[in-house]
Amino acid sequence: MRSCMNDSAHDTEHVYRVLNYALDIAKHESGANAELLAAACLLHDIGRKEQFADPNVDHAACGAEKARGWLIKNGYSDEFADAVKGCIRTHRFRSKNPPQSLEAKILFDADKLDVCGAIGIARTLLYKGRASEPLYSLTESGEVRDGANDMEQSFFGEYKFKLEGLYGKFYTKRASELAAKRQAAAKNFYDSLLAEMRECYSVTTKENAS
Amino acid sequence: MRSCMNDSAHDTEHVYRVLNYALDIAKHESGANAELLAAACLLHDIGRKEQFADPNVDHAACGAEKARGWLIKNGYSDEFADAVKGCIRTHRFRSKNPPQSLEAKILFDADKLDVCGAIGIARTLLYKGRASEPLYSLTESGEVRDGANDMEQSFFGEYKFKLEGLYGKFYTKRASELAAKRQAAAKNFYDSLLAEMRECYSVTTKENAS
Repeated sequence: MRSCMNDSAHDTEHVYRVLNYALDIAKHESGANAELLAAACLLHDIGRKEQFADPNVDHAACGAEKARGWLIKNGYSDEFADAVKGCIRTHRFRSKNPPQSLEAKILFDADKLDVCGAIGIARTLLYKGRASEPLYSLTESGEVRDGANDMEQSFFGEYKFKLEGLYGKFYTKRASELAAKRQAAAKNFYDSLLAEMRECYSVTTKENAS
Repeated sequence: MRSCMNDSAHDTEHVYRVLNYALDIAKHESGANAELLAAACLLHDIGRKEQFADPNVDHAACGAEKARGWLIKNGYSDEFADAVKGCIRTHRFRSKNPPQSLEAKILFDADKLDVCGAIGIARTLLYKGRASEPLYSLTESGEVRDGANDMEQSFFGEYKFKLEGLYGKFYTKRASELAAKRQAAAKNFYDSLLAEMRECYSVTTKENAS
């Protein structure tokens, strides 16, 4: 796992946070298999490296296969390896494959919790910095766009497309509660940044208009 | 200038924001030379590329020399080029060379405003992502450090070392006022992120303790 994590938004601490969230959620759900869940959490992002090298690769599908192979090679049963593969395959937010098992739903929720609140803002910015993408784009008249329906990649675009609407999309009650506690921190940051930027650019747009 | 900006924390929009802040501050200060100030703002970070390639290079000193050479080559007077060089040489926060002229003080303040508030948080995270540095470090017992006196590079370390104490360090009244309006957004984000992370890691540290 360690050798497959190579950006600071998806570093080993992200993996340990997901494991911590999952353990917390599992305490509130009866019947979760802790060993399966732990394996799925620890291995869930091992396909990231391949996706970073080639954006057409789906890290969930790729990581699921890698995890299955590694588990079988290391003496785990086919049944266990297949169950882990199933969890990892469906953990991706933008996937058309929704999670099926309880453990898959917990992994999905735990991974999504790490995109909520201040940590979600922080990780998105780390990722944008690594990809050299901008914070926002401007209209033709030089005003700062809020990110809604942006055609180009930007932090504001990612906030509007992904982060803002996350909070109603959890499978477990515990994850929904943890996410709700974090929602204001993310919204406040986005609102503050947008207000600061619009105030800054108003110096020149006002001058152009007058 | 455009060809010298190559990370999203120090992109061309950072330069235009600094120019906007400087124009705003200059309106509140009598006697600022607008042409000198604009040239100094537009060229202030052209030494960034060299510092990114070799961290021992001081981008302020390097950029000051590059700017002077470019201005003279493009028909500006020695006097003008030297004044711009003086502004750029002293704009760096960690420099032992404080700004001398009014324009140098305005450039310093304008550049520092872009490290205040939500934009300061956002740019620091973009930079950390590009440099593949982590958000925080852990104590030996697995607790999240707050960044104070951290020995290793991290976002929390940068917040404590640089961002938190910026607000009292401006030369102009207008910049102090603009910075003060932004202070709560930065503090709230840091406090929220620290609280989220400590709550997340408490799942395992509590289990280890019990």
